[in-house]
Amino acid sequence: MRVGIGYDVHKLVENRDLIIGGVKIPHEKGLLGHSDADVLTHAVIDAIFGALAVGDLGSHFPDTDEKYKNADSLKLMEYTYKLMNYMGYKIGNIDCTIIAQSPKMAPYLDEMKENFGKILNTDLKNINIKATTEEGLGFTGKKEGIASQCICLILKK
Amino acid sequence: MRVGIGYDVHKLVENRDLIIGGVKIPHEKGLLGHSDADVLTHAVIDAIFGALAVGDLGSHFPDTDEKYKNADSLKLMEYTYKLMNYMGYKIGNIDCTIIAQSPKMAPYLDEMKENFGKILNTDLKNINIKATTEEGLGFTGKKEGIASQCICLILKK
Amino acid sequence: MRVGIGYDVHKLVENRDLIIGGVKIPHEKGLLGHSDADVLTHAVIDAIFGALAVGDLGSHFPDTDEKYKNADSLKLMEYTYKLMNYMGYKIGNIDCTIIAQSPKMAPYLDEMKENFGKILNTDLKNINIKATTEEGLGFTGKKEGIASQCICLILKK
Repeated sequence: MRVGIGYDVHKLVENRDLIIGGVKIPHEKGLLGHSDADVLTHAVIDAIFGALAVGDLGSHFPDTDEKYKNADSLKLMEYTYKLMNYMGYKIGNIDCTIIAQSPKMAPYLDEMKENFGKILNTDLKNINIKATTEEGLGFTGKKEGIASQCICLILKK
Repeated sequence: MRVGIGYDVHKLVENRDLIIGGVKIPHEKGLLGHSDADVLTHAVIDAIFGALAVGDLGSHFPDTDEKYKNADSLKLMEYTYKLMNYMGYKIGNIDCTIIAQSPKMAPYLDEMKENFGKILNTDLKNINIKATTEEGLGFTGKKEGIASQCICLILKK
Repeated sequence: MRVGIGYDVHKLVENRDLIIGGVKIPHEKGLLGHSDADVLTHAVIDAIFGALAVGDLGSHFPDTDEKYKNADSLKLMEYTYKLMNYMGYKIGNIDCTIIAQSPKMAPYLDEMKENFGKILNTDLKNINIKATTEEGLGFTGKKEGIASQCICLILKK
């Protein structure tokens, strides 16, 4: 049994899609990044890499690599799952928090959970996604960016 | 065995009580929120909801519900405990951090731990509360708000 | 089995060494603090104290104590290890994140891991250190400071 923690931040800018947990959310701005900048999926991947002790997102998917330009982060999660599986582990449970002043995340959380459950091959009762704000404070409060954190427990198969 | 993580922020404003971990702390400002804005208790509740994979504070206690206006967050923690108990889990251990530039939290930590221990029906050796600052940086450093984070491990009874 | 979480922040200033995970990193600024301000080592120590439920860095090593002036934080980690060992626990695994806009941490991560592994008497496959940025946002993005977080799982011996 091992634990991992992930944290990610991306800037909100115009003319980009807002993709969180693999869900395209209607919004006047989107997240900037080399890949699709899916801040939640990145935090989950980093938590799993962390629990496996195999580095981080940047060491597996360098943002200098053209291959990952506008990459679908759910594809990166598939790689992460395969690595976890190969190393002999499975998801115990995952708990995440999206930190964003807006938009409201509640309508999209179920679809995000389904995306993660399918890729990580785990029951939906092992995945939780929370949303909160920093009450107008800091860079998420000022809507300059969105942050996400994730904790995971993985189990030896 | 399951893990959860919680994070909460509230703004510091005048003419509000400062209640952290159920303790009313003498201070020139207090935390703003629909409930009593007990930022630490909220982080603990969210960590437990997260470990149980049952959503978050906002989904259980909507801030649009008049019932929770100025609510005592320790009462919300009682509900959380009952839900955890009903679902067949108990606290393994809890570790929290209060992130605040001021006031000093050290004199109040024992009372907070006792509050949590009683409600969560667990030994005090299973509860830890830390305090730190962001060294004058960010919104907590500028005393615009207080943040808290919590991690918990819950065990099948 | 118990979990803990640690979080620490220090300011970047001129005329100080930048020491992270016990590694002196060439940089135009360093971290300000009473001790050597090793922000990563402090987060790891706080996570272990948290898992043991024995308070925090400030309660064990007060920054008003001259003894800890410019202290080598790896020495504080040695004390932490001895306390954990005395209490009958050992490291399960540790996962950390350094949050810094610059410098690049990747070249130094292996040396940091070796420092931690030796002191905490655990295999390097039980230690993971990640690095990320807040994409130019917040106080780490503006290079005013560096933050670190850590999660740990400890096991009864």
